[in-house]
Amino acid sequence: MRDVAVIGVGMQKWGELWEKSLRDIYVEAALLAIDDAGVDHIDSMYVGCMSSGLFTYQEHIGSVLADYLGQRFIPSTRVESACAAGGLAFRLAYIEVASGVSDIVMAGGVEKMTDVSGSEATNALATAADVDWEGVHGATFPGLYAMMAVAHMHRYKTTREQLAMVAVKNHRNGAKNPRAQFRMEIDVEAVINSVKVADPLNILDCSPITDGAAAAVLVPAEMAGKFNKGGVKVIGSGHATDTIALHAREDLTTIRAATEAAKRAYEMAGLKPEQIDLAEVHDCFTIAEIVVNESIGFFEPGQGGPAVEAGATDIGGSIPVNCSGGLKSKGHPVGATGVAQIVELVEQIRGESGPRQVENARVGLAQNMGGSGGSSVVHILEGM
Amino acid sequence: MRDVAVIGVGMQKWGELWEKSLRDIYVEAALLAIDDAGVDHIDSMYVGCMSSGLFTYQEHIGSVLADYLGQRFIPSTRVESACAAGGLAFRLAYIEVASGVSDIVMAGGVEKMTDVSGSEATNALATAADVDWEGVHGATFPGLYAMMAVAHMHRYKTTREQLAMVAVKNHRNGAKNPRAQFRMEIDVEAVINSVKVADPLNILDCSPITDGAAAAVLVPAEMAGKFNKGGVKVIGSGHATDTIALHAREDLTTIRAATEAAKRAYEMAGLKPEQIDLAEVHDCFTIAEIVVNESIGFFEPGQGGPAVEAGATDIGGSIPVNCSGGLKSKGHPVGATGVAQIVELVEQIRGESGPRQVENARVGLAQNMGGSGGSSVVHILEGM
Repeated sequence: MRDVAVIGVGMQKWGELWEKSLRDIYVEAALLAIDDAGVDHIDSMYVGCMSSGLFTYQEHIGSVLADYLGQRFIPSTRVESACAAGGLAFRLAYIEVASGVSDIVMAGGVEKMTDVSGSEATNALATAADVDWEGVHGATFPGLYAMMAVAHMHRYKTTREQLAMVAVKNHRNGAKNPRAQFRMEIDVEAVINSVKVADPLNILDCSPITDGAAAAVLVPAEMAGKFNKGGVKVIGSGHATDTIALHAREDLTTIRAATEAAKRAYEMAGLKPEQIDLAEVHDCFTIAEIVVNESIGFFEPGQGGPAVEAGATDIGGSIPVNCSGGLKSKGHPVGATGVAQIVELVEQIRGESGPRQVENARVGLAQNMGGSGGSSVVHILEGM
Repeated sequence: MRDVAVIGVGMQKWGELWEKSLRDIYVEAALLAIDDAGVDHIDSMYVGCMSSGLFTYQEHIGSVLADYLGQRFIPSTRVESACAAGGLAFRLAYIEVASGVSDIVMAGGVEKMTDVSGSEATNALATAADVDWEGVHGATFPGLYAMMAVAHMHRYKTTREQLAMVAVKNHRNGAKNPRAQFRMEIDVEAVINSVKVADPLNILDCSPITDGAAAAVLVPAEMAGKFNKGGVKVIGSGHATDTIALHAREDLTTIRAATEAAKRAYEMAGLKPEQIDLAEVHDCFTIAEIVVNESIGFFEPGQGGPAVEAGATDIGGSIPVNCSGGLKSKGHPVGATGVAQIVELVEQIRGESGPRQVENARVGLAQNMGGSGGSSVVHILEGM
C-alpha cells in the first residue's frame, strides 16, 4: 500500500444557506479544495451524505456532484453512515489512493438540511437510530444522548456544569473561526438557562441544523511535494460499527465503535493517545465530547468532565479538542462534518489557523460518529 | 495491488417479501454467501442500497446489517449510486481486498421496496433522476426510458417487436431460475398487448418492484483455494458517471457511462467485447438492454434490436445476455441488482446453473446502471 497525503482542503461559511442548493454548496467547497491543492482535475470522488433523499428528495448525488463540478464521467461514489458519512468518504478515498487504483481523489461531504422544517429534519435524523426499536417509540437524538448523559452523571458524578463547559469552550473556539455557523461566545449560565430539549440537555448543549459542505484532495505522499502547499500525511485510519440501538449495548457511558476505530487508527500510526497534539471529535451534544474523549483514550473513564473543567481540552491545554468550534459552534451538516474535521486538522498542521492556532500542531486526530455511536471513523494526520 | 477472487455468493428467491424486513432479507442472502464460501467471519462489508430512507425510513444500515449478521464492530459501509449501488459495493469490496486493507470482504446489496405503495415507490425511484430538472416536470423512469426508446426506434428503425423480444428472452431464462420473481414465459404478443405505461413501453417492458438481497464474499486470489468452492477471479472493474439528467446528454441512443465503465474494465482485463462468454446487463426496461449491449461493444450502434431478433443474446447465442432472467424476470430490488449479477456470473462460471447453464462459460461481464445511465459499474470475472 502507498502512503497517502492530503494536499488541499476547502469549506465555506456554514449556516442556513437558503439561497443555495445542495449541488451549489458542494461545488463551492470542492472548488476551494481544488484551488488549495492546485490540481486541474480529479481522478475519482467520494461524497459523504447522510440523507439527500429525506432532506432534498434527491438520491444519486455522486453523479450529480461530479457533473456539476465539471468532472463528468469520473468514478464518483456516495457513501452513507449517518453522521459519520464524511469521515467514511475520507477513509474510502484514502484506500483508493493507497491501493494504487487512482492518484488524485477527492473526499467530500455535504448536507442540505434547511429545505425541510425543523421537525422534519429531526425525524430525518432519527433514521440514524434504530427505527424498528427506537424511532417507533418516538426516540430522537437529543433523547438518546440525554440518556447517555444521565448514565454518565450517575456513574461518574459528571456535573451539569461540566457538560455546559464543553459548549462554552467550543463556542470560544468557534468565535475565532470565520466559517463557523454560530460565532458568539457563551457562558455556563447561558447554557444552563437555555431552553430544555431533553433533560439534562438544553438547546445550547446541542449541535445545530446546518447547510454546508467540505472537501479534501488526497494523493500518494510521494507526489505531494509537487502541489501548492505540500502534503499532510494520513498515518492512521480506523472504522468500526456497533448496534445503532442504544439499548442493545452493554454500557451507555462509553462508545465502543469509537474505541475500536481509534484502536485501529492508533495501531496503524504506531502512536498512543498521549502523542496526539490536537483532535476534532464528534460533539453532536456536549455529553458526546466527554464520552468520546474517554472512549478514544484521551482520559480515563469518568475523567472527561473534570478534564474539560480543568482546561485540558482548551487551545493551550494538554490535548486541545475541537479548536474549530466543533459541531456545536461550527455547525453540523451531518454528511460534511467528518470532512470538515480533516479541513481543520490540515490547516492546523500547516499552521494556518490564526487566532485558534495550536502551537507545534504536528499530529492531529479526527473522530467522526454516526447516530448514537452505531459507527465511528477515526483518522490520524501528521505533518510531512 | 493483489488479485482478487469471489469465493461465495448468495441470494434468496426474490419477490414481494412482506413477511420479512430489510434486515431479515439482507441477513438471509449474506448467510447463504457465507455458507457458500465456507468462511466463519468477514473482516469488512459494503452494502449497496439506493434508498432505505425513502423506502423504509431507516438510514445507517451499514451498521444495522453488520450487527444483525453477527459481525458487530466490523467496518461496514453503505454505498449509493441509485440502481448501480450493488455493483458499486462490489467494486469497493474489490478495491479493499486488492489494496491489502482487508482479506475477507463481503459485497452485499439490498432493497425493501414493497413497504410503500406503488406510487410512493415510483416517486422514490424518481430521486435517481434529476429532481430539479426532471422530477419537477413529473418525469419518472418509464417516461425517461420511453424517450430513449423513441429516439432509438427513430434513428435505427428498432422495432416494437424487438423491444418485446428482450422481455420474451429474459422471461424464458428467468422461468429456469428458481430465485426469479416472475417465472412465467411470455410471448411478443403478450408484451405488445400488455397495459401501456409510457409509449412505446408497456408493463411487460418494465422491470418490477421487488424485495430482495444478494451477497458475495471476496478474498485475495491466492487464498481462494482454501475455501469450499475455490474462486472466480475479478479481472476487470470499471466505474463511470454521467449527467443524471437525460436532456443534458448529447445522444439519447447510447449510454456513455456504460461505455466508459466498460472501456475501463476491458482495459484492465486486457480483453475485447467479443472475448466475453456471457453477460448480465441492466435491463430495467427492454430498451435498456438493447442500448447497453451497443454501448458496451457487444453490437454496433443500431444492431442491438436485430441481434435480439436473431437470437444472438439467447443462451446458446454468440453472447448470451441475462441468463438469470435479468431485472425483467428475476426482479429488481434496486440496491441488490448489481450484486445479483455477480451471483449469476459466479454460478455460471462454476457450472452450477442447471437448465440455464451456458456451455464453456469462462469469462463473464456484469453491467449495472444507475437511473437513466447517470452511473454505471462494469465487472469482468474469469474462472481460475
